[in-house]
Amino acid sequence: MAGHQAPEQPLDVQGDDEDAGDGLQSSHRMLSFSDALLSIIATVMILPVTHTKIYPEEFDKSIQQLLAARVAVYLMTFLLVTVAWTAHIRLFQVVGKIDDTLALLNLACMMTITFLPYTFSLMVTFPDVPLGIFLFCVCVITIGLAQAAIVGYAFHYPHLLNPQIAHSAHKAAFRQHILGLVLRGPALCFAAALCSFFFFPLAYLLMVTVIFLPYVSKAAGWCKDRIMGPRDPPIQRLEFFTFDLHEPLSKERVEAFSDGVYAIVATLLILDICEDNVPDPKAVEAQFHGSLVAALGTFGPHFLAYFGSFATVGLLWFAHHSLFLHVRRATRAMGLLNTLALAFVGGLPLAYQQTSALRQQPHEELESIRVSCAIIFCASIFQFATWTAALLREREALHPSARFGGREHALMFAKLALYPCASLVAFASTCFLRRFSTAIFHLMQVAVPFAFLLLRLLLRLALALLGALRRLAPPTPAPGPQDARDARAQLLPEPC
Amino acid sequence: MAGHQAPEQPLDVQGDDEDAGDGLQSSHRMLSFSDALLSIIATVMILPVTHTKIYPEEFDKSIQQLLAARVAVYLMTFLLVTVAWTAHIRLFQVVGKIDDTLALLNLACMMTITFLPYTFSLMVTFPDVPLGIFLFCVCVITIGLAQAAIVGYAFHYPHLLNPQIAHSAHKAAFRQHILGLVLRGPALCFAAALCSFFFFPLAYLLMVTVIFLPYVSKAAGWCKDRIMGPRDPPIQRLEFFTFDLHEPLSKERVEAFSDGVYAIVATLLILDICEDNVPDPKAVEAQFHGSLVAALGTFGPHFLAYFGSFATVGLLWFAHHSLFLHVRRATRAMGLLNTLALAFVGGLPLAYQQTSALRQQPHEELESIRVSCAIIFCASIFQFATWTAALLREREALHPSARFGGREHALMFAKLALYPCASLVAFASTCFLRRFSTAIFHLMQVAVPFAFLLLRLLLRLALALLGALRRLAPPTPAPGPQDARDARAQLLPEPC
Repeated sequence: MAGHQAPEQPLDVQGDDEDAGDGLQSSHRMLSFSDALLSIIATVMILPVTHTKIYPEEFDKSIQQLLAARVAVYLMTFLLVTVAWTAHIRLFQVVGKIDDTLALLNLACMMTITFLPYTFSLMVTFPDVPLGIFLFCVCVITIGLAQAAIVGYAFHYPHLLNPQIAHSAHKAAFRQHILGLVLRGPALCFAAALCSFFFFPLAYLLMVTVIFLPYVSKAAGWCKDRIMGPRDPPIQRLEFFTFDLHEPLSKERVEAFSDGVYAIVATLLILDICEDNVPDPKAVEAQFHGSLVAALGTFGPHFLAYFGSFATVGLLWFAHHSLFLHVRRATRAMGLLNTLALAFVGGLPLAYQQTSALRQQPHEELESIRVSCAIIFCASIFQFATWTAALLREREALHPSARFGGREHALMFAKLALYPCASLVAFASTCFLRRFSTAIFHLMQVAVPFAFLLLRLLLRLALALLGALRRLAPPTPAPGPQDARDARAQLLPEPC
Repeated sequence: MAGHQAPEQPLDVQGDDEDAGDGLQSSHRMLSFSDALLSIIATVMILPVTHTKIYPEEFDKSIQQLLAARVAVYLMTFLLVTVAWTAHIRLFQVVGKIDDTLALLNLACMMTITFLPYTFSLMVTFPDVPLGIFLFCVCVITIGLAQAAIVGYAFHYPHLLNPQIAHSAHKAAFRQHILGLVLRGPALCFAAALCSFFFFPLAYLLMVTVIFLPYVSKAAGWCKDRIMGPRDPPIQRLEFFTFDLHEPLSKERVEAFSDGVYAIVATLLILDICEDNVPDPKAVEAQFHGSLVAALGTFGPHFLAYFGSFATVGLLWFAHHSLFLHVRRATRAMGLLNTLALAFVGGLPLAYQQTSALRQQPHEELESIRVSCAIIFCASIFQFATWTAALLREREALHPSARFGGREHALMFAKLALYPCASLVAFASTCFLRRFSTAIFHLMQVAVPFAFLLLRLLLRLALALLGALRRLAPPTPAPGPQDARDARAQLLPEPC
């Protein structure tokens, strides 16, 4: 508002959080809060899916459509919120410190993002009416304008910027470039909003383009490089702070976002329990002669399913936690795979609902247990894939101890392979032992936590056994600790 | 499991997270996850309250009882979860680093805590049946045993302990003392569980004792000191790492817990919007001749209420964020006041529900707007009280710039006083201008964000005005920046 460098303003108006703790810490808390909000928004849309009441006798087409629509809303929300979250990470890699105005602008941005799920609900419920897509575009334009205001404000007061940009000679070019990136999506959405009045299928197409914009632009840039030759260096250097695909994401924020998703999924379950599984006093009097224990006995499977689901979510978090302990930087591919894993983790309450609600019908029970196994398998296999992606660029992405041949590598492998293997085994055995499918599923849920506790022991046993086998086969005269390490080094590259 | 100092074990089994990043970071993420879980669990029990369908024509005694019961469950859960959270902070001030076993034990502990709300639901729905209190006691005993296992494990492998304790000469005494503190509550609960079979009102009494145990024991210790003289120094020193009342809490964890509560409250609102306010296609066809815009028009007040509530939650978070920027350490009194503020923030979705759902009836509308104002007032006044508590021990609790006479003091005061004043004014004006109460409430919700944006400017104007007035009254010949600072220094101790 005042001059460019603002030397006239008194000190107590400028740079307030520079003094009270350093500004960096302040930005840190705002980012944690944003991560928490975004992760909850991404996940909470599974609730309408699980709240869809399904009675087998009336499982007709309209219910099926409703369920499919709600699953679609959940997936769209999850996908788009993670895209917005990635953009948010990039933006606050440019803006290093915040002040009150930036915090308020960020809140406005968050408020608009939380409104996106509603526009999806409208789109899915009324696919033929352009209002949903119009509102969606209005939201994206609002978000873009708020972000542009953040960028403009931060460049106006350069002490808020990342020091590397603040001291750069190309600051104006940086600003131009970042504003372009921030406003690219909203510009497309403006076109989509106009289209929505005339020919709205085109608007849907534009919307999909907006969601995949970073990927599309990366692919376009790659093609351009191939055809026209590589670009000039200054723009290459600019890319470092942008929405570029191959830049590592902030590891801390990936962890915070994942924690939020796991925490909310673990907690949604008890909400259902508390709302649905407290018996009605009158029913207890009438049906169970006042015996509360007998009444609760009928909910027994629900409690079992709750503990099983909580244990699954908790242990998936545990595996994720162990993995990211060894991660140095999260590459974009790891971020994408992690997001997919989280999307399936968000589906776990659905698995709980399925395994607990449809117990009365033997056929549906089998189906629901298979669905549960499939969801657990997908969630855990994408976690495993995240690790594989990290191993592919292990020098950049992993600490030495978890790389090929590192001393934590085998343990990490075992931890991440446990759930995919267990769910696959459970799924397979439901095909052969249909009658015992519930028992098998619950056995799996109980056995896996103990397997995690004893994993280190089991791994040592397995490695010792392998070492002993090796010693038996070629008669080498010098067995010792060196030998065991060799055995492990040989074991590592093998797939499960 | 092996020897005490475990020198025989190979290096790759011991001390895994010492290598992969430092163990402290690992503990940090587990604590963030626990904070997220606990804050969500504490807050999410407001959902059954807001989901209670109230139709004015059938607002009879049974609905009133149901509503009261659910509010009671919410408050009990919030209170007890914050007690458990405080104990968790204390515990992990003793245990500085974690390994896999501790992480799994902590997960087990969290799982049991998430089950507590269900036992409250049972207690409230069946107050005459001892099963609820029995289950509650079983949960508390399980939590206590898990915590005792954590303490035992950490003392068995001392590299996991806080270095100050690990290198202390009184380690055995420390362990005894901490185990005693951890198992005190469960022991009482064991007695309560036994009582629940014979005379369960006594069990309820014991339960209340368990909840207020830290306060009770502090008060007892204080009385003992008064009567018997001060205790011997070694035990005094032990207290530092315990559940002592006046010890500062970890500022970081208070922030993380608060962030979780604010984030979940902001997000619960959109869930209600998405579930309830998407019109049914058939109804749109029948009632609005296929016009979706007209159908959505009927939900207009809901959207307004949503944006108003989100803005309120967001700005309360903003005030909290500004406050804790200036906080150095959170004393126990601040923690308690902050918890009360959060409990009312958790009630905000209820305020939203009230202001949006009961619009058709003019009388209920007035009531609901008053309830909303009261909830906002309580939430913000407890925030203000947190600041007052910090000011009372400002040397320990605040950074210099926010203390009396500091240059951020007046701004901080204005930020925290804004919502109490605004909600009080709105409440008062509903008494005089009954017909315009809705308009007043919405005006307040729209005006306050702008007031926050312009706060710095308004404050400078007010201070300049005061300075000018001072200059007019006694004719001093040297006006200047020193004068303005004087004026501010005089302004500071005045209440709003």
